[in-house]
Formats: sequence, structure tokens, C-alpha cells
Amino acid sequence: MKQFFPILQVLVSFSKPHAVFHQKVRSIFTEKTFLYQAKNPWGTKKKHRSVKLNFPTYTMADPKIEEILAPLRAAVKEQGDLVRSLKSNGAPELDVKKAVAELKVRKKTLEDKEISLAPSSATFDRSKMEDLLKRRFFFDQSFAIYGGITGQYDFGPMGCALKANILNAWRKFFILEEQMLEVDCSILTPEPVLKASGHVDRFADLMVKDMVNGECFRLDHLIKAHLEKLSADKKTSNATREECQDIVVRLDGMTKDEMSAVLAKYSIVSPMTGNKLSEPIEFNLMFGTQIGPSGLVKGFLRPETAQGIFVNFKRLLEFNQGKLPFAAAQIGNAFRNEISPRSGLIRVREFTMAEIEHFCDPSDKDHPKFESIRDTKLQLYSACNQMDGKSAVAVAIGDAVDQGLVANQTLGYYMARIHLFLIKIGIDPVKLRFRQHMGNEMAHYACDCWDAECLTSYGWVECVGCADRSAYDLTQHSKATGVRLAAEKKLDELKVVDVIEPAPNKGVLGKAFRKEAKVVIEALERLEPEKVEKMEKNLAEKGSYIFSANGSDYELTKDMVSIKRYQKTLHVEEIVPSVVEPSFGVGRVMYALFEHNFCTREDDEQRTFFSLPPVIAPLKCSVLPLSNNAQFHPFVKKLSEDLTRVDVSHKVDDSSGSIGRRYARTDEVAIPFGITVDFDSLKEPHSATLRERDSTGQVRIPLDELPSVVRDLSNEKTTWIEIEKKYPKFEQQESVAKA
Amino acid sequence: MKQFFPILQVLVSFSKPHAVFHQKVRSIFTEKTFLYQAKNPWGTKKKHRSVKLNFPTYTMADPKIEEILAPLRAAVKEQGDLVRSLKSNGAPELDVKKAVAELKVRKKTLEDKEISLAPSSATFDRSKMEDLLKRRFFFDQSFAIYGGITGQYDFGPMGCALKANILNAWRKFFILEEQMLEVDCSILTPEPVLKASGHVDRFADLMVKDMVNGECFRLDHLIKAHLEKLSADKKTSNATREECQDIVVRLDGMTKDEMSAVLAKYSIVSPMTGNKLSEPIEFNLMFGTQIGPSGLVKGFLRPETAQGIFVNFKRLLEFNQGKLPFAAAQIGNAFRNEISPRSGLIRVREFTMAEIEHFCDPSDKDHPKFESIRDTKLQLYSACNQMDGKSAVAVAIGDAVDQGLVANQTLGYYMARIHLFLIKIGIDPVKLRFRQHMGNEMAHYACDCWDAECLTSYGWVECVGCADRSAYDLTQHSKATGVRLAAEKKLDELKVVDVIEPAPNKGVLGKAFRKEAKVVIEALERLEPEKVEKMEKNLAEKGSYIFSANGSDYELTKDMVSIKRYQKTLHVEEIVPSVVEPSFGVGRVMYALFEHNFCTREDDEQRTFFSLPPVIAPLKCSVLPLSNNAQFHPFVKKLSEDLTRVDVSHKVDDSSGSIGRRYARTDEVAIPFGITVDFDSLKEPHSATLRERDSTGQVRIPLDELPSVVRDLSNEKTTWIEIEKKYPKFEQQESVAKA
Repeated sequence: MKQFFPILQVLVSFSKPHAVFHQKVRSIFTEKTFLYQAKNPWGTKKKHRSVKLNFPTYTMADPKIEEILAPLRAAVKEQGDLVRSLKSNGAPELDVKKAVAELKVRKKTLEDKEISLAPSSATFDRSKMEDLLKRRFFFDQSFAIYGGITGQYDFGPMGCALKANILNAWRKFFILEEQMLEVDCSILTPEPVLKASGHVDRFADLMVKDMVNGECFRLDHLIKAHLEKLSADKKTSNATREECQDIVVRLDGMTKDEMSAVLAKYSIVSPMTGNKLSEPIEFNLMFGTQIGPSGLVKGFLRPETAQGIFVNFKRLLEFNQGKLPFAAAQIGNAFRNEISPRSGLIRVREFTMAEIEHFCDPSDKDHPKFESIRDTKLQLYSACNQMDGKSAVAVAIGDAVDQGLVANQTLGYYMARIHLFLIKIGIDPVKLRFRQHMGNEMAHYACDCWDAECLTSYGWVECVGCADRSAYDLTQHSKATGVRLAAEKKLDELKVVDVIEPAPNKGVLGKAFRKEAKVVIEALERLEPEKVEKMEKNLAEKGSYIFSANGSDYELTKDMVSIKRYQKTLHVEEIVPSVVEPSFGVGRVMYALFEHNFCTREDDEQRTFFSLPPVIAPLKCSVLPLSNNAQFHPFVKKLSEDLTRVDVSHKVDDSSGSIGRRYARTDEVAIPFGITVDFDSLKEPHSATLRERDSTGQVRIPLDELPSVVRDLSNEKTTWIEIEKKYPKFEQQESVAKA
Repeated sequence: MKQFFPILQVLVSFSKPHAVFHQKVRSIFTEKTFLYQAKNPWGTKKKHRSVKLNFPTYTMADPKIEEILAPLRAAVKEQGDLVRSLKSNGAPELDVKKAVAELKVRKKTLEDKEISLAPSSATFDRSKMEDLLKRRFFFDQSFAIYGGITGQYDFGPMGCALKANILNAWRKFFILEEQMLEVDCSILTPEPVLKASGHVDRFADLMVKDMVNGECFRLDHLIKAHLEKLSADKKTSNATREECQDIVVRLDGMTKDEMSAVLAKYSIVSPMTGNKLSEPIEFNLMFGTQIGPSGLVKGFLRPETAQGIFVNFKRLLEFNQGKLPFAAAQIGNAFRNEISPRSGLIRVREFTMAEIEHFCDPSDKDHPKFESIRDTKLQLYSACNQMDGKSAVAVAIGDAVDQGLVANQTLGYYMARIHLFLIKIGIDPVKLRFRQHMGNEMAHYACDCWDAECLTSYGWVECVGCADRSAYDLTQHSKATGVRLAAEKKLDELKVVDVIEPAPNKGVLGKAFRKEAKVVIEALERLEPEKVEKMEKNLAEKGSYIFSANGSDYELTKDMVSIKRYQKTLHVEEIVPSVVEPSFGVGRVMYALFEHNFCTREDDEQRTFFSLPPVIAPLKCSVLPLSNNAQFHPFVKKLSEDLTRVDVSHKVDDSSGSIGRRYARTDEVAIPFGITVDFDSLKEPHSATLRERDSTGQVRIPLDELPSVVRDLSNEKTTWIEIEKKYPKFEQQESVAKA
């Protein structure tokens, strides 16, 4: 198989609401013929594999190319340095913005040159892969017989089984192994929760409407398409062309007003009808609905699963017996009403997420198991490298944390675990990098954020986010509800503090304020020390104090409330935990898996298949009778029952095609092992052949041993190499079997 | 533990849209002390169990009680016979309705007497169980810190793990074992799909609104509460009381107008404010939203997962290589905007379903594996028994199908499989019955429908529906889309048929109708034979024909279309498959599991626990160091790592409580096995104790054997009885350990 990546047009982002960015990042790849050895962790006999893969790598092998690129790299670095110095000198924001925009222009020039110099001999045929995915119903558009809805997909039997296996592997790798607290929270979320989290106000994209028919367009996509078309027009002057290209590059950082000005300047109208367009409108990406029959309780479909964990923080802390650190996790669906969904599974309206919220002491972000992954090497594409015009670099995570490149051990631990998980399920390590958010794209509450990006034919796609969100979310929900979302931390030394507290006289308050007395008493209990002091002063001087609670004012007098002062010895202090959040977009991971594992047989370009690892393959085994001969039936039936007994998912294919054609069909749905019952199976001792998908190697195994052999191969308790050593090779060639 | 069921007040229904009924069905139970032996399928040493369970059974043991009930049973039967004869004589609908209402009154009289005679020594304390579920965060109200939303629940770590284990068991039992095609479809569903399925028009409950503050009440609940209160009032006359009781009984069958009349007659106002109420309003139970930014595409959150399977029928049939029968399955969330959710997990707004749609030839509903379950005995509560005043009866499913009591083998096969699955995961067989829908409550499209009902303190609760839906859904979607959702069936004999077809002249049509020509041509291709004949006649006689397509009329002339007649030999015929649908309400099954497995230690009423089978228990094992002694740490750490390696979910509890208290805590979250590392563990050969939850029996096992022993116990590959035979008993009493 040969693959080409029409390189990195778009960096597709899967960001948290406050950090929706569509940074264009490009990089360069030289080709390198890889030994399958390097990739295949589950021990199929690699040298027998009929597929040769060409992987792009980060290595800049050619000094001639580097010579051409050197001045461009220097130009990026020069501007990067300027941005840094402006920032450190506290220059006006506008100046910094302008410098960042120029930095982006220079980065793009460098990247364009890189692409123009990269060899492009290999091709990856996306339409061929999409045809296979559709034909064998891995997934397809939802409600197609009704015309379909863009941005919604149904997973068929193979896609669904793959997804279930990925989620099971995830649950084992993260939840069980780390003893996380898994929760399963409601999807319908009342408005106040998402108001507090910031989604109601800020989770929006800009769009414009066709003034006649109401059709909507996502504003940045529309401008980009219009200006790119204009640039491509031969009649366009060079000056205009440059201006267009400049705007496209700056688009992501533009404000609503700036984009509005572009619309006006280029007289952009609807590309579909030529009608005039509205002014830009902020369109909130959440799906709204009403909860209950009254129409009074507004709710949304959750845009992420994380908030369900935050609102349950108190219960989870209690479940963990009050101790920090602990991690909670959730697998579930989330919804975003994209203005114009595209790129298949990558930008959709309904998707499955797997999120972890790790709560820890903000003053101690070390991780107890950090040493176990210290030497794991990751491709890190730091903010600094991005500003310096450099590429991603392989760094051991221990070194990255020691050097302060990655903010803390907990963040580093999860980055390494994400890396290991992705490799385990079949992501190509060469097409995986961690990109650090740059200062201007990081959500305002985050300390550090790295995205695990997979290289696909759509460019580098963010598949997993990994952010240190500090105490932002818990603080927001505490503020909104008045419920303290905090943990207690034992103090090393006892601490004596002065306390000042209002002591309400409930009887008198009750008489004075009746029903509202409760509100007043509760508000008094929450009152901050400075205000208590002020109250004390007023009561002493004027005999009364005007107290605001729940939006109303109450006049308090001395008989209603007295002020207590005393000293208290503290054994614990209250801390609001910091949160480190790894957040997986399951559909995106699946899409990357499809691309990274799509193969073509060297001897037959029409025979395509997916080399997915057994642990996540939709089905583990096929059972194929050589022909329709009735003598085979009892053997096939018994094998199927025995495989079920040892929990090996499998498929019996007793249709009439040749054995070769049926192998090809099982290869297409990524079944890693195939049992064929043939005439030799009828003889004692009964046996059958077992075939491995990637190498197409076959061995002969006694029937009673087969189910447990396949189970152990599927669970990765043994390898194909070991099985080939243990059992006699079956020499009949597949091409012969095909006949 | 002693349990009492305040018997069967409500039959809680989980029905398909067209069959939402709230039948009140009661039955009688005598108590019988059960040997735990009879229930426990995973082989814990039952006689050691410290809990004695009292199960109600269907057996009417006491002839004296039967003597009293005999005339009441006869009265029900007499009326049941009348209903039957009215129906068979085609009596006016109104007469039948009146007779059915009278039948219900007589059933209620019988049931009330049954309850008054049933011994009620045992008590089940629901609040005690709910306290445990909340305290250990199995589940709790969603968004509680924001005041919460009724009818929404979040599952905490234990509830979530339990749910995941149930779903995994379900997937193995149904999908893998039967090689079903699992799909995972979109939740957001465009309106036309649910219009075709009937949900947009008919999936509604009646409600009334407070005319001042807009508060909504579900109409049947409101009337029932009002009349019951009135009945209970001592000042109410006997005549009124009887009338009230009569209305309550008839409520489920009442029309909107009849209920409206009741509202008026009793001057019912808002019970909260005393304000006047609106006329009854039909409130659709689906959550609506807009898909996309234009606000033009109306959508709903799916109210069931089934429709996702139906709209994918063509793809699934193709995946199955065109062959019938096959079954598709889906696990996923569905949503219903209940007017007034209640009864905890039983009536909620957001819930997980697991649905199977088995597609088969309508003329052959035999099931190939029927013989394997033929002798399985189920408690069947047939429509006939319900009319005759009898109870449910244990019948082998083979006999039930042979006698025509259950409509066909496929339906019977799934009923037996549902029964076996529920028992496997811990539903008490004595509290499980299959109730057949009576003629007047069956959805109009269904041939036969049986609900698996579990007895809980809320009465008999429908947990799984099992219906033969005939060809209803596929036909509806075919009609709505024009896409034939049908399968081809090989004919035993070739069949020659006459064909009459319009042959459009595309060129001429194109010139005449321009853009609309395509519509006309497509409509011609779909034209029914009778209409083609009419067209042929008109064209011959008048030279033209007015043809309606897509709501417009087109005048067709002879040059535009000719009529072809010929004979065709058919090898296959097209059939619209019948659908048998088992539909699981996962939350309801979970709730029944909680009640059926809630136990109290005989020696300590405060020690409550759940005796859930290991296969679905949230965690399989606890690891407890006897004390804080540092020497235990390495052993605990190694055990934890080894358990992880063999995929045994577990919890280390090294907190400071006594070992007895920590056992109690792990019992509460249903952990079936507990390892304790003590001072003997430090000596060679290293060993630890293993304790079984239900019996509290303990054995001593070498450390290196422990992980695999616990794995085999958890997977039910071995039993506690076998383990007790193999390893030395650990004699220290728990009460001693407690000290």
C-alpha cells in the first residue's frame, strides 16, 4: 500500500468551547519504507506480510531541501522572537495581535514550501476506503432513505462492534487499571448548568443567513471559499491575490467586526443563490429543548460529558472517602449543532466522547505512577517549536516534564498513557504527535494543553485533548449554586485562625421576616468576613444594617443578629482541586484507525482490507467450510458453539463463493483469523487450517485446540509467531485455494 | 431478610407508543420459606448463607382462602365469558366497552379480597434500600446541586459498573450467541421518520394546565388522586364513594371527552393552587429540537431505538447477503418527556434501551433453535387467565406454542431467552411472569405481545416487552419514502405472471415538462397495475391522461408514454418481513435487580447488602490489609497488579476501619469476594483469606493462586462450593475479626 498525504491542509480541532480554533499547521514528511515490524505490536509474522507500507516521517533526510528551507525557518523564528519580546514587554494587545498574524503568514509560507519540496510518489485513495466502509456497512449516513441529515452517521454491525471493542479496551486501560470512578450522567442538561460552564454565552460560531431563503453559512468557511476562488481566478490582480491569501491566513484570529468588514469589502453574497447575506450572527452550537410539559424549563443536549462529572464532584469525593487525588471518567454521547458539518466522522453533530477528569491538589501535581512511563517517547510539537519554524521532536516524557516543557507530572502521565493506548489499538506511531496549544489559542482557564493529533488525509486531526483546566469548572459551579465544591487537605501543622461570624437570632428574624427569614439566615451563614466586620461596625454605630440577600434588602437590627469573634484551631484546609482532563473523540479516533490500517494486497490492487489489531477487530474469527458439502456442517456447527463458549466473536460464512473470495470478504471487515474446514478435517484426528489476515500465513491445528488458540490470539495472550512455531505450516497457496 | 409486597398496586407499563396502558392487575401470594438453593445459580455454599428469604409464590396453598375466593373468581369468569360472547357476536362497540369495564370492576373486587386474605408478616423496607443506593452512589438525582430535575438520574461508579456489566452480559447472551447484527444509530431523528412511525401523531399523554401559573398535571394521575382523596373522606356518601371507585377503575379506558366530563362533574381544580384548570390537552412525549442553524429542520430525540434499525433495513439485509431470517440489535438511550415522572428509575425522561428486531418470513415463524429451549418453563399470565380470574401458570414454552397460547416459535424462543437472561443476571424467578396483552391494549399492528414483568414494591413492573409487530414498521417507512423495504424469497416453483408497465418516452417528456420530467418518470415507474390499465384505456380512448405525481397534475399524451404488456417468469417473490421485537428497559431491569437482591444480615438488621451475581456485580473483589501495618503494603500492591492482569475489577480498601466494618462496606456495594492480607500472609508459603459475600464463608488460598481463582469465580467457571472443597476453611469468625 502506498499512501500520500496532501499535506495538512487543515488542522481539525475538537476543542473545548473556549478554545475552538482552526489553526493551520503544516509539516514536512520524507518517505521511508518502514518495516512492518516496527508497527505491529501483536506479533503476527511480520516478514510474511504481503503489504509494504510507506510512512512519512519527521526526519529531514535531505540536506539540499533543508538548505532551501533554512531562510524561511529563520524568518519564522525572527517573527516568533518578536512576538515573545512584545509579550514580555507588555506591548499593547493590538501590536501583539498584528505580530501574531504576521507570524502565521510566515509559518504558512514555510509550510507551503515544505509541501512543494516533499516527494509525493505514494497515494492514499480515500474514495476507495470510503467505498469499502460504506459497502460493508462500517458506517453510513443516518436516515438515508429519508434523504439523510448531514453530520449524522449510523454505525453498522462492523463499525458498531469496532466501537464497542475500542470502548471496552478504553475502559480496561484507563478505568480498571487506574481504578477510576466511572459515571453515566444525563444528556439533557438544564440551562443554569451550562450557563455556569460558559457554554450558553460562549459556545458559538459565527454565521450569515441568505436574506431571501434563510439558508445559513458558517462565516469563516464562506469567506475562505470566496477568497480562494477569487485567488484562483486568472483575472485577479496580484495585489488582490496576496490580500486574499493574507486574509485567509488571518481568518481564525479575526473578530466578528473584522469578518463583517471583509464581507462588505468583497461584496460576498450567497454562493448558492446570489442573494444578499445578513450581518454575522453568533450561533450557539448547542441543541435546545424544553424539559417537562410547561415549556418553562429550558434545557440543552450536553455539548461535552465533562460537566456531568463536575456537578457530581461532591458525591464522587465522598465515594472516594474524601481523599485526593482521584479520577472520574465518563463514556457517552454529546451533541453540537454544527452549522455546516463535513469531513465524514470528523465533524459531526452527534458523537461519542470518553472523558477523564483527574482531581488533584493544585500545589502537588506529581503522579504516583509517573516513574512507570518516564521513558516513554512522544512526538512533541511544542508551542515554542511552532513559533520557531521547527518540527515536532521525539522526547521522553520524563525529560519533557523535568525541563518544564510539559507543565506537570499528572499532565505528562496522561499524555504518555494516551500515547500508549492509541498505539495499542492500532494508531500508527509515526502519524501521531502531541501539539501544544499556543498562548493565543488556549482557553483562558487552562495552564497547559496538548492535543494528540493523528495524521489523516484531512491533515492533522485532533483526536484527544489533554488539558490542565486548573480549578475553573468547580469554581464556576460553586459560584452558581452556592455549594462549595472543594476538598479538605490535612495540614502538616495545626493552624490557629481568628473567626468572625454572625450569630442570627432565629426567633426574632422569623417574626420580622416570616417566610423570608430562612433566606436571610442562609445568606448570613455564607457571609464573607469583611462584610461581617462591616455589619458589626454598622450595628454598633447605627444600631442597624441593610443586608442584601437573594436580590432583596433587609434591615437587620441588634436584636436580630449578634457578632461572634473567637479563635479556631484548623487541622485541615479547604482546597479547590485542579483538574487534568484527557478527552477522547471516539469517532475521530475510529476514523484515524481506518486510515492508518487501510491496506491493499501487493499482488492485487482490488483487494483492500483493514489490518486492525485483534483486540479491537469487529469479529475475531471466521469459520469457512471449503464447500457446501453436507459432511462439513457438523464440524462448522461444533466449532461455532465452541468459539461462543470461549467468548470469541465470529462469523460463519457458508456461502457459495470460492475460499479465496470468502477470505477476501473477511479481510475487508478486518477479521484477523480464519478457520477453514476441509476434507482433511473429516479424517481423524480432526483438524482445520487457521489463517492470519495480514501475512495470509496458514497452519494446521487439531479441532479441539482451535477455539482456545483463537481466544488466546484474540486476547493477545499469544502471538501468531508462536502459533506458527508450534503447529505445522499449511502449504497450500491462497491462489490455489482461490481456484 | 423478610419482604412484603404491598401488593401490586400498579402495573407499570413500558409500552410501545400505541399501547401505553396502565392496567391494574393484582395477584395473590402466599409465603413460603425458600431454600436459597433454589435461587442461586452461581454455586455459593447456600446452606451457610446467613440470610433467609421469604418469597411469595403463586401457589394457593390454603383451601380455606380458596373457598372464600371461589364465588369472586366465578363472577370474573362469568363477565369474561360475556365479553367473549359479545365480541364473537359482533355486538356494538359501546356494549363491549361497558362489559369490559364491568369485568375490570369484578377483577378488582377479587384482587382486593385476595390482598385482604394474604399474610403480611414480611416487610420490605424500600426507604432502607433507597438510602443504601444513594449513600453508596449507585445512582442519584441529576444536577442535584442545581435543584435537580425530576425523572433524570446519574449513575455513580457502582451503578455505572453494574449497568456496563449488564449490557456486556446482554451483548454476549443475545448478540454474540445469536450472531445478531448490532447497530448504533443517531439519537436526533428528523420529523418525517417519526411521522411515519406514528410517534408524531399518537405518542401523547393527556394533561391539564393550571390557568394561572401554567403548571401541568397528567390528567389520569390528577383524577385518580382527587377521587381517591374524596373516597377516603368520611363525609362522602356511599353512593359517591362507589362512583369514585368505579371511575378510577375505568380511567385507563376513558377517552379525552369522558375524562373532561369527570373533571367538570367533580369540579376538579389544581391541587397545588386551587386555580381553575384548562381543558385536557394532548401532550406529545417527544423532546423536540431544531437540527442545523436555519431552524427549518425539525427533529426529535428518539423515543425508542427501534426506528434506527428499521430505517437501516436495506443495508442490514444486504449485509446478511439478502437472507432471512436475521436479527438486528441496538443498545442506546431514548427520551420521553414525561409529564410527571415518578417511581425512581421506573418512569424517567432519559433511559437506556436494548432492543432486538428479528426479521422473518411472515409465512414461516418457526425458529431453528426452538428445540433447545422447548422445555423451559415460564410463568405465563395469559389474556384468557386474566379474563377468567385465574393466576399465572407455569408452562413449558414448547407446550405454550403447540397449544397456540403463544403465537409462534420465534416469539416463544425470545420469551424463553428473555427469561433465561433475566434469571442469569439475578432476577428472582418467583417474581417474574410474562403477561399477555389483552385484545383492548394491544397495539393495532401487533399479532401477539407478552411483557416480562418483575414484581417490585411498586407492583408488577414491565421490564421487557416482547411483541410480534408484523410488517407494520417496514410498511410505514416504505410508504413514506417510496423505498421498498422488502426481501426476496426463492419460489419453490417458478411462477409466470402477466406484467403491465408504462414505457415512458424520455425525450418527449423532457421537452414537455423540463425539470419536472424526472418526477413524472419516477412516478410512472412506481405506478400500480390497476392505474396503468386505466391509463392505457384513457390514452386509447381520449388520446391523453391526467397523471398526478408529487401533488401536481400532468397531461400525458400517446407520444409521451406507451403501455407494454408481457409475461415474466418469477424465481423469487418479494415479501415484507414480519418483526418480532424484544425490548429491554435497562433501568427497570436494574431497579428490579436491586429489589430482588436487597438483603439484611439475620444477626444485624443494620447490615444491608446486595446479593448480585458475580457476573454483573460492579466490582468482583476487594483487597483488604488487616491493618495499616507497612509490611502488608507490598502484598496488597502485588495482588492488585495481578488481579488487573487477569482483568478482575477490584477495590483496595486500606482505610482504618475494622475488618468487619470494611467487609460490611464491600457487601453494601455487592462485591462478591474479599481477600484479606493478614500476619499469616507474611509467612512462607504466602497465603491470604478469601471470603464469599452471601455465605460469609472463608478459605485460605496461596497468594499466587488467588488471582486466577477469583477470575474463575467471577466468570462463573468455578463455584464457591468447589473452592471450599479444594482449600482449607478459614475458621476465624467474622464477629471475632470485627473486634
